[in-house]
Amino acid sequence: MATPEKAKPDKAKIGVLGASGYTGAELVRLLLNHPRAEIALLTADRRAGQAMRQVFPQFSPFNLPKLQSIEGIDWAGAGLDLIFCALPHATTQKVIKQLFAVLSVIKVVDLSADFRLADTAAYARWYGHEHHAPELQRQAVYGLVEVYREEIKRARLVANPGCYTTCAQLPLIPLLRAKAIDPDEIVIDAKSGMTGAGRAAKEEMLFSEVSEGFHAYGVGQHRHMAELDQEFSLAAGRNVVVSFTPHLVPMNRGIFSTIYVRGHNTSPEDLHAILLKSYANEPFVHVLPFGEMPATRHVRGSNFTFIGLTKDRIAGRAIICSALDNLTKGASGQAVQNMNLLLGFPETMGLEQAALFP
Amino acid sequence: MATPEKAKPDKAKIGVLGASGYTGAELVRLLLNHPRAEIALLTADRRAGQAMRQVFPQFSPFNLPKLQSIEGIDWAGAGLDLIFCALPHATTQKVIKQLFAVLSVIKVVDLSADFRLADTAAYARWYGHEHHAPELQRQAVYGLVEVYREEIKRARLVANPGCYTTCAQLPLIPLLRAKAIDPDEIVIDAKSGMTGAGRAAKEEMLFSEVSEGFHAYGVGQHRHMAELDQEFSLAAGRNVVVSFTPHLVPMNRGIFSTIYVRGHNTSPEDLHAILLKSYANEPFVHVLPFGEMPATRHVRGSNFTFIGLTKDRIAGRAIICSALDNLTKGASGQAVQNMNLLLGFPETMGLEQAALFP
Amino acid sequence: MATPEKAKPDKAKIGVLGASGYTGAELVRLLLNHPRAEIALLTADRRAGQAMRQVFPQFSPFNLPKLQSIEGIDWAGAGLDLIFCALPHATTQKVIKQLFAVLSVIKVVDLSADFRLADTAAYARWYGHEHHAPELQRQAVYGLVEVYREEIKRARLVANPGCYTTCAQLPLIPLLRAKAIDPDEIVIDAKSGMTGAGRAAKEEMLFSEVSEGFHAYGVGQHRHMAELDQEFSLAAGRNVVVSFTPHLVPMNRGIFSTIYVRGHNTSPEDLHAILLKSYANEPFVHVLPFGEMPATRHVRGSNFTFIGLTKDRIAGRAIICSALDNLTKGASGQAVQNMNLLLGFPETMGLEQAALFP
Amino acid sequence: MATPEKAKPDKAKIGVLGASGYTGAELVRLLLNHPRAEIALLTADRRAGQAMRQVFPQFSPFNLPKLQSIEGIDWAGAGLDLIFCALPHATTQKVIKQLFAVLSVIKVVDLSADFRLADTAAYARWYGHEHHAPELQRQAVYGLVEVYREEIKRARLVANPGCYTTCAQLPLIPLLRAKAIDPDEIVIDAKSGMTGAGRAAKEEMLFSEVSEGFHAYGVGQHRHMAELDQEFSLAAGRNVVVSFTPHLVPMNRGIFSTIYVRGHNTSPEDLHAILLKSYANEPFVHVLPFGEMPATRHVRGSNFTFIGLTKDRIAGRAIICSALDNLTKGASGQAVQNMNLLLGFPETMGLEQAALFP
Repeated sequence: MATPEKAKPDKAKIGVLGASGYTGAELVRLLLNHPRAEIALLTADRRAGQAMRQVFPQFSPFNLPKLQSIEGIDWAGAGLDLIFCALPHATTQKVIKQLFAVLSVIKVVDLSADFRLADTAAYARWYGHEHHAPELQRQAVYGLVEVYREEIKRARLVANPGCYTTCAQLPLIPLLRAKAIDPDEIVIDAKSGMTGAGRAAKEEMLFSEVSEGFHAYGVGQHRHMAELDQEFSLAAGRNVVVSFTPHLVPMNRGIFSTIYVRGHNTSPEDLHAILLKSYANEPFVHVLPFGEMPATRHVRGSNFTFIGLTKDRIAGRAIICSALDNLTKGASGQAVQNMNLLLGFPETMGLEQAALFP
Repeated sequence: MATPEKAKPDKAKIGVLGASGYTGAELVRLLLNHPRAEIALLTADRRAGQAMRQVFPQFSPFNLPKLQSIEGIDWAGAGLDLIFCALPHATTQKVIKQLFAVLSVIKVVDLSADFRLADTAAYARWYGHEHHAPELQRQAVYGLVEVYREEIKRARLVANPGCYTTCAQLPLIPLLRAKAIDPDEIVIDAKSGMTGAGRAAKEEMLFSEVSEGFHAYGVGQHRHMAELDQEFSLAAGRNVVVSFTPHLVPMNRGIFSTIYVRGHNTSPEDLHAILLKSYANEPFVHVLPFGEMPATRHVRGSNFTFIGLTKDRIAGRAIICSALDNLTKGASGQAVQNMNLLLGFPETMGLEQAALFP
Repeated sequence: MATPEKAKPDKAKIGVLGASGYTGAELVRLLLNHPRAEIALLTADRRAGQAMRQVFPQFSPFNLPKLQSIEGIDWAGAGLDLIFCALPHATTQKVIKQLFAVLSVIKVVDLSADFRLADTAAYARWYGHEHHAPELQRQAVYGLVEVYREEIKRARLVANPGCYTTCAQLPLIPLLRAKAIDPDEIVIDAKSGMTGAGRAAKEEMLFSEVSEGFHAYGVGQHRHMAELDQEFSLAAGRNVVVSFTPHLVPMNRGIFSTIYVRGHNTSPEDLHAILLKSYANEPFVHVLPFGEMPATRHVRGSNFTFIGLTKDRIAGRAIICSALDNLTKGASGQAVQNMNLLLGFPETMGLEQAALFP
Repeated sequence: MATPEKAKPDKAKIGVLGASGYTGAELVRLLLNHPRAEIALLTADRRAGQAMRQVFPQFSPFNLPKLQSIEGIDWAGAGLDLIFCALPHATTQKVIKQLFAVLSVIKVVDLSADFRLADTAAYARWYGHEHHAPELQRQAVYGLVEVYREEIKRARLVANPGCYTTCAQLPLIPLLRAKAIDPDEIVIDAKSGMTGAGRAAKEEMLFSEVSEGFHAYGVGQHRHMAELDQEFSLAAGRNVVVSFTPHLVPMNRGIFSTIYVRGHNTSPEDLHAILLKSYANEPFVHVLPFGEMPATRHVRGSNFTFIGLTKDRIAGRAIICSALDNLTKGASGQAVQNMNLLLGFPETMGLEQAALFP
């Protein structure tokens, strides 16, 4: 399954920084299937010098560049068109700052949380230190395509949204914008598969620690809340603070959000109609018929978000469920969607695959 | 591992109706470990004539009575002291009515939902038909031991609570009784392992349909709500209706409830103190230190409920998580706890096992 | 994600009989991604009249024909180029016989076991009855592409191989052909994910019956052995009978074969060299470096077979491990590979995707 | 569920070294249920000073000693009757040597591999260094109770067998002793749950690396082979070397061995009869009827080994399957069985529990 060796003049040259993690692997999977992308550079500091197949054996049959250390790269010589940055928090800020210092025309899609908060004060409050690249923080565009499509097209640095936040924002932003729900009574009960925790070897992520069980974590204090606050407040035109609890599900992929809302002079049917209308022309957001609810398995490996809404038995209240694959629409798929906008490709290119179920 | 053949004068003779289901198997597992119980009768209509080992091979090394059909039993001759009824809804009412007609002194612990609602009108409304044994419905005691211990000791028919409801009632009833939370703003987001769905062969319960995924079901309309309404309203001294959403987790055992409440002139610390005090002397309800949260795997196979509480970032709101094993404290373990009360045994007898983890 | 409504002159019109099963869903997933295939017909007798999304919600965003009953189809009017038959054993023979009776030029890829045995006597012996379409049985070409590529190109009926047999035949046939191993001492210990058992609602396939456990089944008597015997005997030029034991693994997808062989005047390194050479130009069979072993997760959702070989500590003996996805290379992926050959498309078209891991 | 504080004169005082690992937790679970054992000491060097509930929250409701560092223990003052040693390889030798130096009458059950090989030369060959306590190595009794019961009763140091080896030795030793099978043609294909790999944080044991997949490891070279060689050769009265391949199954608990043997002038029925007779009076080894096969889930959490045997379709060959729980009969349960023998308790005390299924 070797990709041809010769020049590919119609292809964009793509770099992936941090290719040894799960979002890195998912980027490679998607880019191998993308007709206009050529994977030209892969980095992984601790695995530098190794072949990608040693880190992710599923790529054995494919012809991919060796893993490099970031330090040794000749950025100017690499001739890259776009870089995906899948590095840890904080490291990211420094690397991207350096990147832009040497490369004047590069486009960057960053998958970390480093550039998601526009407000430098909010950043310092949530992360406990000043941002290392505050000018870039101000320039970065929040990469929730369905909300910021036009801004993204003009950006050079896109902050790819988090998986939990994408799953909660897609159903709630249209309702908040329409002032159709009470912003003071939103409860988001979120559940994630294990890949959301990354590939770092931690005792609490061992198979035997998490299979055959379920638990909550970071209750009352998860950092993803900063991103939710920012976007919900923008959508509502006022300050919004929600209850949000993340949980871990013994599965690899998937985010599921159960969202409890109270209509603001609206019925559940009205809320459903707003969602249907908002996403009528969106290729990756699929609103189910009223009363039908999604399942994570039906979006596994795809770039879709499925949204369902039904009425609660308490008058005036509605329950919304949304599901996406945290590695695809929740990370690398959305990143490729952003790449398509940044490079002028059709937005759905390379992302049309149906989910892998069963 | 044969149990001795001779008479066991200090042992109560126990029957299990519906021994081929999961709650039946769990009863057998617990009773085999109980020093004062002798399993004298097992029924399973569709498997009548078979050995228990053909239905549940884990019991191969044990000496157990053959499975019988209910119809052929000589109730008077069986000399039973107590019967566990683990039969389907509706069938249960008829069987228990007949039982009491022929056995004047038998004690019954019913694991179905048939006798949980005290109000015949509520029963008819939720189940769509009149109850077949309304006098028994009125006599039955709701078997949530921590709330109805004294009533249970005097009962002859105990309606063992549901798994979802036990997991939600144990943390909420003390708070409602103390009028410490707002009864109009309770959200219960509940997650269950697959054994809660029973052993019936249904496409949607196949391994390949439910592993590696997560979804909600019965959103806005689950029958367990009737039980919640009844007990919460009793505890609060007024009508209480909660938001409740059940979900399925790809694991065998466990219920996890994430509960969002607003304090009523109370802080989260006050709520925690109420729970700690309420359960200080309860052997099977374990309240974790403030801010610590439970996990289902830490109660697997045990009769414990673990409860954690922390503050939400929204002032005045708290988040409670509770976890139990749906087959043990959520069904058969609680049923044995009820048996111990009904037969005058120490309440914890046969139920002291620690959880099986990993 | 609607497929355009207008005519697609360069696309082959494809029918899938039995689209409500897992191999049917996998065919639809792969065909939606195939640039030269148009899904023109889907049947599912018990779900006739429903939309595909009601049976497999992951296809909700896609525009697909409604499910039909086989009986009502106007075969001549449908204008199909190729039919995938994913129907149960025995039904298949009758349906395909009728198909060829009314359609003179149709191509058929059959995913059942019905046409895999060339010998009518062997068929009757293993299945307990005469074949209903013995002429077709003789015409059918066994669809193991890597062995019968040229015959398949000229066929009209291809019997797609079984998942267990593909996984065992790909490593063993080159070694048997080369007379490099002892045909009387082959042990194949095979392990399969749960989707291999299909979507029929059976108690023994419920999540709670198979998760957190492992067991063998059909020990000493599995029907797949007939297919193994046939192809191994052909490859060796003599009668070959192997030890073969299938097991169930609590995972959705994947077959893993651990194969114990004794070299026949050959070293393990010789055996590895034979495999490397045999598959040097095969796009979907990937032989790992000597001593490296595959994992099912690294071929999940892809059409690859990964093969590893190492020496046993007993002199002269080698251990081979092979892995494939039972729904892709073990069923629907191999079927599309066969379709590509039958319709003159590039063999890898629509099948180049890397595996979905994690 | 507090254990009473006062003296327990009829209870043996037990220490567990290495209580923060999985076998440590399983020992604590079993000992809490043992009527004659008092857990008097728990060590875990890296967690010294913590409560057991911080390391294994399932023990929160129980009253247990704090975790200590081995270094700080006053061995003489502790007054222990028996010590379980669940420490890593190599460390174990040193700790046990020191233990015996200060405690003249202590009994030790060691769960590591350090004392399983009686031959110091074999030890040096497999482990690459001289044994640190060769005199103890010679004294240690191999703790496979069904084979060495009388020797164990007289021992002071018992080397608890490995999980893989227990699962393979129980079915094979009686057949080798009876010279009923060919010792040169034994293939053992073994599959283990994940807890067998312990609790160390390793990337390859993360949930997302091992769920939804299956693979072999250590092919041709696993250290457990030394133990197999030793015991099989003793049983056969000649040198025996088997083919053995371990695999990982995405489940927590369980070992399953599929064993291929050739009868030596015996039929499969003869082999089955030998096993039945050998284990007729063994409380924990359960031989299934001819042709029935075990499953790991049916021994989960119990101390049983289930063994099935059937004929292969190749004349003269048989297939044996055996299943046990790697943490119970494969480690801590067998260790408690050894404790019972060492301390003169009934052999089954505290171990009679039926398996936890589902």
